[in-house]
Amino acid sequence: MTLRLGVIGTGAIGRDHINRITNKLSGAKVVAITDVNEEQVKRVVKEEGLDTKICKTGQEVIAAVDVDAVLVTSWGPSHEEFVLASIAAGKPVFCEKPLATTAAGCKRIVEAEITHGKHLVQVGFMRRYDQSYRLLKQTIDNQQIGEPLMVHCAHRNPSVPSDFYFGDMPLTDSFVHEIDVLRWLLDDDYISAQVIVPRSTRYTAKNLQDPHIVLLETTKGIRIDVELFVNCKYGYDIQCQVVGETGIANLPEPMSVLMRSEAKLSTEILMDWKKRFIDSYDVELKEWIDSTIKGEAHGPTAWDGYFASVTADACVEAKKTGQIIPISIPKRPDFYSKK
Amino acid sequence: MTLRLGVIGTGAIGRDHINRITNKLSGAKVVAITDVNEEQVKRVVKEEGLDTKICKTGQEVIAAVDVDAVLVTSWGPSHEEFVLASIAAGKPVFCEKPLATTAAGCKRIVEAEITHGKHLVQVGFMRRYDQSYRLLKQTIDNQQIGEPLMVHCAHRNPSVPSDFYFGDMPLTDSFVHEIDVLRWLLDDDYISAQVIVPRSTRYTAKNLQDPHIVLLETTKGIRIDVELFVNCKYGYDIQCQVVGETGIANLPEPMSVLMRSEAKLSTEILMDWKKRFIDSYDVELKEWIDSTIKGEAHGPTAWDGYFASVTADACVEAKKTGQIIPISIPKRPDFYSKK
Amino acid sequence: MTLRLGVIGTGAIGRDHINRITNKLSGAKVVAITDVNEEQVKRVVKEEGLDTKICKTGQEVIAAVDVDAVLVTSWGPSHEEFVLASIAAGKPVFCEKPLATTAAGCKRIVEAEITHGKHLVQVGFMRRYDQSYRLLKQTIDNQQIGEPLMVHCAHRNPSVPSDFYFGDMPLTDSFVHEIDVLRWLLDDDYISAQVIVPRSTRYTAKNLQDPHIVLLETTKGIRIDVELFVNCKYGYDIQCQVVGETGIANLPEPMSVLMRSEAKLSTEILMDWKKRFIDSYDVELKEWIDSTIKGEAHGPTAWDGYFASVTADACVEAKKTGQIIPISIPKRPDFYSKK
Amino acid sequence: MTLRLGVIGTGAIGRDHINRITNKLSGAKVVAITDVNEEQVKRVVKEEGLDTKICKTGQEVIAAVDVDAVLVTSWGPSHEEFVLASIAAGKPVFCEKPLATTAAGCKRIVEAEITHGKHLVQVGFMRRYDQSYRLLKQTIDNQQIGEPLMVHCAHRNPSVPSDFYFGDMPLTDSFVHEIDVLRWLLDDDYISAQVIVPRSTRYTAKNLQDPHIVLLETTKGIRIDVELFVNCKYGYDIQCQVVGETGIANLPEPMSVLMRSEAKLSTEILMDWKKRFIDSYDVELKEWIDSTIKGEAHGPTAWDGYFASVTADACVEAKKTGQIIPISIPKRPDFYSKK
Repeated sequence: MTLRLGVIGTGAIGRDHINRITNKLSGAKVVAITDVNEEQVKRVVKEEGLDTKICKTGQEVIAAVDVDAVLVTSWGPSHEEFVLASIAAGKPVFCEKPLATTAAGCKRIVEAEITHGKHLVQVGFMRRYDQSYRLLKQTIDNQQIGEPLMVHCAHRNPSVPSDFYFGDMPLTDSFVHEIDVLRWLLDDDYISAQVIVPRSTRYTAKNLQDPHIVLLETTKGIRIDVELFVNCKYGYDIQCQVVGETGIANLPEPMSVLMRSEAKLSTEILMDWKKRFIDSYDVELKEWIDSTIKGEAHGPTAWDGYFASVTADACVEAKKTGQIIPISIPKRPDFYSKK
Repeated sequence: MTLRLGVIGTGAIGRDHINRITNKLSGAKVVAITDVNEEQVKRVVKEEGLDTKICKTGQEVIAAVDVDAVLVTSWGPSHEEFVLASIAAGKPVFCEKPLATTAAGCKRIVEAEITHGKHLVQVGFMRRYDQSYRLLKQTIDNQQIGEPLMVHCAHRNPSVPSDFYFGDMPLTDSFVHEIDVLRWLLDDDYISAQVIVPRSTRYTAKNLQDPHIVLLETTKGIRIDVELFVNCKYGYDIQCQVVGETGIANLPEPMSVLMRSEAKLSTEILMDWKKRFIDSYDVELKEWIDSTIKGEAHGPTAWDGYFASVTADACVEAKKTGQIIPISIPKRPDFYSKK
Repeated sequence: MTLRLGVIGTGAIGRDHINRITNKLSGAKVVAITDVNEEQVKRVVKEEGLDTKICKTGQEVIAAVDVDAVLVTSWGPSHEEFVLASIAAGKPVFCEKPLATTAAGCKRIVEAEITHGKHLVQVGFMRRYDQSYRLLKQTIDNQQIGEPLMVHCAHRNPSVPSDFYFGDMPLTDSFVHEIDVLRWLLDDDYISAQVIVPRSTRYTAKNLQDPHIVLLETTKGIRIDVELFVNCKYGYDIQCQVVGETGIANLPEPMSVLMRSEAKLSTEILMDWKKRFIDSYDVELKEWIDSTIKGEAHGPTAWDGYFASVTADACVEAKKTGQIIPISIPKRPDFYSKK
Repeated sequence: MTLRLGVIGTGAIGRDHINRITNKLSGAKVVAITDVNEEQVKRVVKEEGLDTKICKTGQEVIAAVDVDAVLVTSWGPSHEEFVLASIAAGKPVFCEKPLATTAAGCKRIVEAEITHGKHLVQVGFMRRYDQSYRLLKQTIDNQQIGEPLMVHCAHRNPSVPSDFYFGDMPLTDSFVHEIDVLRWLLDDDYISAQVIVPRSTRYTAKNLQDPHIVLLETTKGIRIDVELFVNCKYGYDIQCQVVGETGIANLPEPMSVLMRSEAKLSTEILMDWKKRFIDSYDVELKEWIDSTIKGEAHGPTAWDGYFASVTADACVEAKKTGQIIPISIPKRPDFYSKK
């Protein structure tokens, strides 16, 4: 069986997913497509050589009878509407992050899905599909380090555009991946957040603080520190070290040639963030296609999207106040409990 | 367009390829299939849920009008016949190694293909598609180490079945991958071979020498040493270090979690060879499907299969005699010269 | 010239130093010695083959006319008295940590030394003499990572005796080395401390918390986090990572053979803390002897001992209260300012 | 007791040793000294502040009644004479390499020492005292890799003066350290040598081949390959990998700060060979002083110097002829057998 997909949004990530589905992965094809930019959707259809219907709106895509499942890759503020519509239509929907731009919006999706009674929503937290994170999770789950007690992380970019740092982008945009992947890695939830503000680098845009250190506490008492440094100059570098009762496991570095050259023994560090998780998108989409065909759902849920949103809000508050902010969220509904 | 494939041979590797084509990769489907074991082919068709015609013979598969291209994954001694038949039918053919069991057989294929006048044959040297070898080749091609002068390699298995070492299996079976991948890596040909016989491990089957060191010399004067140690106990470990005029590049290790545990800072070494190049089969098949659809040929050629066979023969001779054996092979025909 | 030393205290560390001075390093010899245990001092003199006067008290050692300088390796609570007496006698004194058991005691020594007007006191913070810390400091001082912004550290022991954890030993005993070496590394002082209490390992003595995370803030705004985990099981492991504006430098690991064995690529992690800084004691003593002969003083000062004591007290307070504790200390006197 | 030394030769290495003995290590002092250059010896005595008699000749140094032992650090061609004279005088002698400039000269020393009947001669093969080689030997001796079967080595210099490569300097001068340290590491002797000549780097002096690969075979059948590359550009790099029946051990890299900087994860490779084994000279001299005081001899013997000379000659012959050259040497005399 081939999964017939409707795609809403043909920007960078949307087009990448269309290419994956069409030219790389087996199991699905695009049958309906739309974008707010009519010229762009036509160009994508032509350049990718797609044999698909072009719709006027996302709602039309969702409603199309030959659409089995929906891919939401439109502008963030439109996500909530399309995800809710997909749920209303009873169609599985894969939504790029954010699930919604507010915690309240995420909560509405959670409630709609519970009311519908069947898991339909998957959020695009692709790090769970990255080979290095999967190896790390395997190590923890196999009890190779005993019970986790602490996690030391770093999220570093060589630099960010000066407008990126407007408001709390590092905490909401970059950090949300850490929030989700660490919950998944530890199979735990957060109960408090604190943000530490170190001396700022001179290489950040004017008046904008960089780096930050975020401290998170989980229900089991695991303590997480994440260095968030988005103008570190030297590379795009994602570090994660889990300290357990009997040993320590580190996220593997991306594969690289070991060089002896110019008085250095070295491996390469990526400068371009796009390369770091590129392969994980393939795995993510392929697993979503395969499980959707089987009528199953295994990926990050609407609840995960909601929890990420609430945690990011707490971090923003913690930064603003300098205080330790409790993360309060209703008890996880049975609907979202682990099998 | 979907490439319609005929598959000859449904043993381990055949079935793996069928699964790749059917469930993982886009662009091709199996439309005809055969195996000398009639029960087995039926079981495979059923278990994989294939919608394909079952043929009585490989010749019938090749002749089938709806078969665009052929996959030869049958018993080694039958390869030559099926590859020649595919050429005669003018159909692209992917043949698992060996291309033929003798250098003379390989030569017949080379001659048939030249006579036919179009590249149809690709040999299953999957290491060229492995990510770590590709990164290494990139480093060399980008002149990051200057001109290569020496290559130090190791091919190590934790152990081999005692019947494996019958005759010259390590030299012909394991080593043939080194022969091909190093020619590709260096873009060079061999002119002599020498085999050194070190003290033998006590962990080898009775009376059977292990390890060996093979020394190869290329037309450019590059010197290659390959340690071939198939009962090394500790792991399946493929090493390749290219020494250039200005630096050294090492084949990346497979990705692994860095552990601190039990008084050791460690990463894992694979014990199971099957895991080492598993991903490269996907890339190999996918690139073959895509280029075949375009009417192009980019992979290891019949000439590469022939050269590997001649080189392996020289190594066997070098071991037997203890001498440095010249590798003489006709000049590379224009048909197989680089574009 | 040979420096004639008086040694007060012949326990483990005292005897080690005596052996260094007598059999390994040039430039000094022991001419007077004492210990509260009369039997022990006799045994040490005999077993080490020393040609030295045995004194009844530390005061007698300090007063001896042929004693040029004093080595205090007695029981901690006696340090203050002997250091003050050495200052009073105008003799250089090397005192093992702690300089005094209270901040007030350290302050008295600082004041006595200032009054005396000449640098006489060196505290036994041997990490400053460790090759790996010196390489790290060189990297920072050479501006290879730009200005330091954050420091991530870990101090891990495989296990500690259950009575060790009595009171706040990890914070006062183990952590004091981190306190001193990080001040030296960064050439900076602390202004606040916070202690985070993660989930405790089950491998700690009953009712005793382990691990802790200590957060320190410096006058320049550098943020330091130190994981203090004294029952980590896997090894004695000292980690220090300095994050600067343009790069990151890590404390080198102790030298170790890289092994490929039993499915692991590994280096050894020490289990015995005594081996980690063993060589730094030689360097420390040798540099103290050489500078003392020249009438100079370069090592950790009484002020450094005082600052360490005040900081450790703040950490204990921070743990007790769960609050961020400001570290208030009088301005550094000119006497102790950098040349 | 203090060992009273006579020093013959005050060039670079001689002066370094004088400094070690005088200012760093306990147990010895220089009491007599000479050099063919009278001005130089006076300058060294003055600048190092030595309290020593200046002799006219090496013979006078050896004969001086207050000289307990002799240090030969003069010009290579004079070594044999001074070592023989020391033996004749019954005085322990430490001789920098080469023991003698010809195998015949080494043999004369061996015979004189046997005739004398007591071990007096130590040759300056300092690598045996290097911490990294000692850790590697420990690993082998502890049976952590089973019986050694193969050794893969590299001796690389960033560059050499163009006159260095006159004749066979790399084989006789650089390679002699490999010859000795590998015999010691494996506790084995060589029976044949072969030299392979790869494509030459363009960064070597005109018409001079670089690199070489030397193949050695031991009595136990262990096969050694040493890449000798003295214009490798990137660094001074000594590699040694011992392949045993159950695992592999690699010579540790020199300690270095792990950096993340400029898109690289790197450690430093030394450019200056002088730094690589600098610490091993201290250990070598200190152990020689201590054992000589005790009347014992533990270091590299005259026999080791002889064996190194014979092996180097075989390598030169192997290069000249392109043949595998047997290394024939009389059976090791009982006098030099292991205790």
